[in-house]
Amino acid sequence: MRDPLKTGEVIGILGGGQLGRMLSVAAARLGLRTHIYEPAENPPAADVAHQVTTAQYEDTSALISYAKSIDVVTYEFENIPTSALDILEQHTVIRPGREVLRVSQDRLIEKSYLNNLGLKTAPFTAVNSLGTLTAAISDIGPPAILKTRRFGYDGKGQIRLTDASDLPKIWEKFERQDMILEGFVAFSHEVSVIGARSSDGNIACFDPGENVHRNGILHTTTLPARLSASQRTDAILMTAKIMNALDYVGVMAVELFVTPQGLTVNEIAPRVHNSGHWTQNGCVVDQFEQHIRTVAQWPLGDGARHSNVVMENLIGADIERVEALAKDSNIALHLYGKADVKPGRKMGHFNCISPKI
Amino acid sequence: MRDPLKTGEVIGILGGGQLGRMLSVAAARLGLRTHIYEPAENPPAADVAHQVTTAQYEDTSALISYAKSIDVVTYEFENIPTSALDILEQHTVIRPGREVLRVSQDRLIEKSYLNNLGLKTAPFTAVNSLGTLTAAISDIGPPAILKTRRFGYDGKGQIRLTDASDLPKIWEKFERQDMILEGFVAFSHEVSVIGARSSDGNIACFDPGENVHRNGILHTTTLPARLSASQRTDAILMTAKIMNALDYVGVMAVELFVTPQGLTVNEIAPRVHNSGHWTQNGCVVDQFEQHIRTVAQWPLGDGARHSNVVMENLIGADIERVEALAKDSNIALHLYGKADVKPGRKMGHFNCISPKI
Repeated sequence: MRDPLKTGEVIGILGGGQLGRMLSVAAARLGLRTHIYEPAENPPAADVAHQVTTAQYEDTSALISYAKSIDVVTYEFENIPTSALDILEQHTVIRPGREVLRVSQDRLIEKSYLNNLGLKTAPFTAVNSLGTLTAAISDIGPPAILKTRRFGYDGKGQIRLTDASDLPKIWEKFERQDMILEGFVAFSHEVSVIGARSSDGNIACFDPGENVHRNGILHTTTLPARLSASQRTDAILMTAKIMNALDYVGVMAVELFVTPQGLTVNEIAPRVHNSGHWTQNGCVVDQFEQHIRTVAQWPLGDGARHSNVVMENLIGADIERVEALAKDSNIALHLYGKADVKPGRKMGHFNCISPKI
Repeated sequence: MRDPLKTGEVIGILGGGQLGRMLSVAAARLGLRTHIYEPAENPPAADVAHQVTTAQYEDTSALISYAKSIDVVTYEFENIPTSALDILEQHTVIRPGREVLRVSQDRLIEKSYLNNLGLKTAPFTAVNSLGTLTAAISDIGPPAILKTRRFGYDGKGQIRLTDASDLPKIWEKFERQDMILEGFVAFSHEVSVIGARSSDGNIACFDPGENVHRNGILHTTTLPARLSASQRTDAILMTAKIMNALDYVGVMAVELFVTPQGLTVNEIAPRVHNSGHWTQNGCVVDQFEQHIRTVAQWPLGDGARHSNVVMENLIGADIERVEALAKDSNIALHLYGKADVKPGRKMGHFNCISPKI
């Protein structure tokens, strides 16, 4: 391995949410420290990080002193302003690198990139006016989904179009934004692969998990997923292809639709991902430690799955289930320390494990 | 459950070593915060604790403001000065309680207490003069071990007597200390039980592990231990008996010698214990989370073991093995973030897991 980080050295993490929190714990397990950069006060990761900088992504001097205080920087979300990345990379190494952020920050670029690799996606067209929207609808759908090209997550920044009526009214809502119209894919279910690639080009993928969403938010991930042996192989090869093309270093999530015609890529995320939380109780090395290992230039863990797992998110008032869940002997709880309960807010998750058959 | 701690509430931990560090991570997993009290600067637990107070155990005002900042206090070592406990209990709840500290802080009291419960220990006699030492040796040994009654750990504060010569010289070394002379127990191997008891009197014990020591320091713990079904039951019943007698709340380690005449108690520790580190990768709820659950008045996890495990400590220069160990797919690493490598210093440990047969 090339120059691995040593005990006490510091991984910077942009973003202090639950992913940054669980990454910090994984880093500590390897004797490494984390320094969180987060605009909001008292983020979840602050409970377990060695240090926290509370500053905006536009604060140049905060970014510079932050970058100088760390040995490498990674992130828990992909929508980091380009200007902040420009500053950080003058003083530290960013892993995963800039290329995947350029690609994944924009749905149009991402889908084109995947198609150019020979991977299937939903049909899509760029939309930037009522005229292009109308043309796109007659070309692709309905039904179709109109999405902002940038900054969407958990179903935000998108609208489902079930017919071609009311287009002027709908367009009004998004006017002056770069959009993409995506056609529907007739899929039976969705799976995701959590892959990892080290800086020396080694790859390890976790077993694909099967995802169920509710209200646009991940509800459960179930291992094993319903996949044939060849679909499972395809899913992993596709993930490896994307990571190799990007010369990627880190953990990446690839969401795939399962269709009778094969696997279609829904989207990629250049980071640890909610659909990989099952690895915390299903594997010796989980996605958080795997990401820290790649960023710290340690050898990859192999991520073999030792148990069957159902991961379920605790959203908003679901947190009230904790007392009952805590009594179930097959359940491992993972709570994020968020005091304010809000509808749609991810408060924690749990992994229900059973023997691998 | 009685009034369990809620998200964001704070568990105080006396001691900031690796046990405090791993307790902090477990607390975070349940959405709880930790506040470490530790005299030394930059303790291992500081990397992952919400807050750290750096102060001596004699610092009354520091103890008072600490006690007022937390919702309950626990500890990672048993030799907390009584004066500090007296102050803390005026402002907060101490779990496990004072009684077990009174018993376990003194080898003579501990062994007498266990005998009074009907449990076997090594033969022992109090020694406080050359005369009592000479009498004790002719009564119990040699071979025998002369130990300080208080503040011993990892083989420190003790000397092995293989014959009755040189007693005046040996006594000179320990003069004016309260000592205990312990006879040898002819045992085939040592096991330990990590038990947990909640404030409503429920008990859950982890499967006994088999310990091997080197130079007085734990080297490996192997699961399953070599025990017959009845020995395994005895080990757990003895642990439960001790915890019930003490009206104990928390995780306790009970070290047992396996002899042809049954199990003999070596010692007890009123805290998470090195011989329970295997639970991190062998169970859904590990000893650290189990302890946090009891202290926070959450329901106990059941601690069922899902895999076979060998835990091995990384002592001093063993830390250089990490690069090779990190490549082994069955090994989970747990490093303590200690920058200074010293002979005999516990730097980390690893759990090697294999399927439970």
